[in-house]
Amino acid sequence: MQTKEVVQSFREKTAHYLKQANIVLTEKEKSSIEVADFGLGRLEQVGLQLITYVNTDRYCAKELVLFPGQTCPEHKHPNRANGDRGKQETFRCRTGEVYLYVEGEKTELPKVYPPEDDLQYYTAYKEIVLRAGEQYTIEPDTLHWFQAGEEGAIVSEFSSNSDDASDIFTDTRIDRLPK
Amino acid sequence: MQTKEVVQSFREKTAHYLKQANIVLTEKEKSSIEVADFGLGRLEQVGLQLITYVNTDRYCAKELVLFPGQTCPEHKHPNRANGDRGKQETFRCRTGEVYLYVEGEKTELPKVYPPEDDLQYYTAYKEIVLRAGEQYTIEPDTLHWFQAGEEGAIVSEFSSNSDDASDIFTDTRIDRLPK
Ligand SMILES: [Zn+2]
Ligand SMILES: [Zn+2]
Repeated sequence: MQTKEVVQSFREKTAHYLKQANIVLTEKEKSSIEVADFGLGRLEQVGLQLITYVNTDRYCAKELVLFPGQTCPEHKHPNRANGDRGKQETFRCRTGEVYLYVEGEKTELPKVYPPEDDLQYYTAYKEIVLRAGEQYTIEPDTLHWFQAGEEGAIVSEFSSNSDDASDIFTDTRIDRLPK
Repeated sequence: MQTKEVVQSFREKTAHYLKQANIVLTEKEKSSIEVADFGLGRLEQVGLQLITYVNTDRYCAKELVLFPGQTCPEHKHPNRANGDRGKQETFRCRTGEVYLYVEGEKTELPKVYPPEDDLQYYTAYKEIVLRAGEQYTIEPDTLHWFQAGEEGAIVSEFSSNSDDASDIFTDTRIDRLPK
């Protein structure tokens, strides 16, 4: 867990970062920026900042912000308990660079590695490099994780309905739902 | 119909306009920008420029560009022949201003009017003004049209699956599918 002050400072940094990239948020959106530390308490290393624009039962759109070197830990979106297909998601890089790793043939000499302390909780090593204007679609129930490059990154996420509670993280210590 | 030269010049103007707003496209995307004149041959007045980032059977994301005063004519997204619900779409204004009109209680003294020559083909007059950072979700089977303000506008469209062929335009002269 992070202190309220740390979360608030990351929220402000995120709003500033988006503004620099000409992405406009309403005041209400700015104050609702989500800062996820995944319960690991190492936000600079393992974390994700996001704003959800819309999330209907059919589609969802978010803006994800990653600070330099920050990692979103490995997870997948399985089929739902009600029989619905799991979340399908498209990541479109808007600024910076993001290194995405998905299930599949391991990339030799990857650009980056998972956080050293958590190495045992990472299994997906097929690398996809996304620079501004590039995108990739992840199918349901496919393990993936991603890390920003040296400048950080802004990533638009377009997807089917989003439901954090149904996500499965490889790292069993992780609890996605904010407290 | 527009000449190839006119379409190409609008495509280039669109790429330039997006670049000015810090929205990065790949070269391939730039050359695939769609310029829709809706078969009316008055592109400056009635038209829409767009790039489709992704369109799966579940969700779709596009960037719409409107030049100053340009109108996207009235239409709706009905339920599909296969029984699927019609397209639900969220418009999020990124730059400029867009005046959106949907079915419902008529707004007195609206900001703008439909193109004079086409007035008989417009019936939706409930006004929603969207400035940068503001958004609105249109439910399926709901008539809507929109016009950009004096600076033009960039609008992100987040939606369920998109299928131009199933759209219904109030103006029976309109043929949405590009030739
Ligand atoms: Zn995911
Ligand atoms: Zn529409």
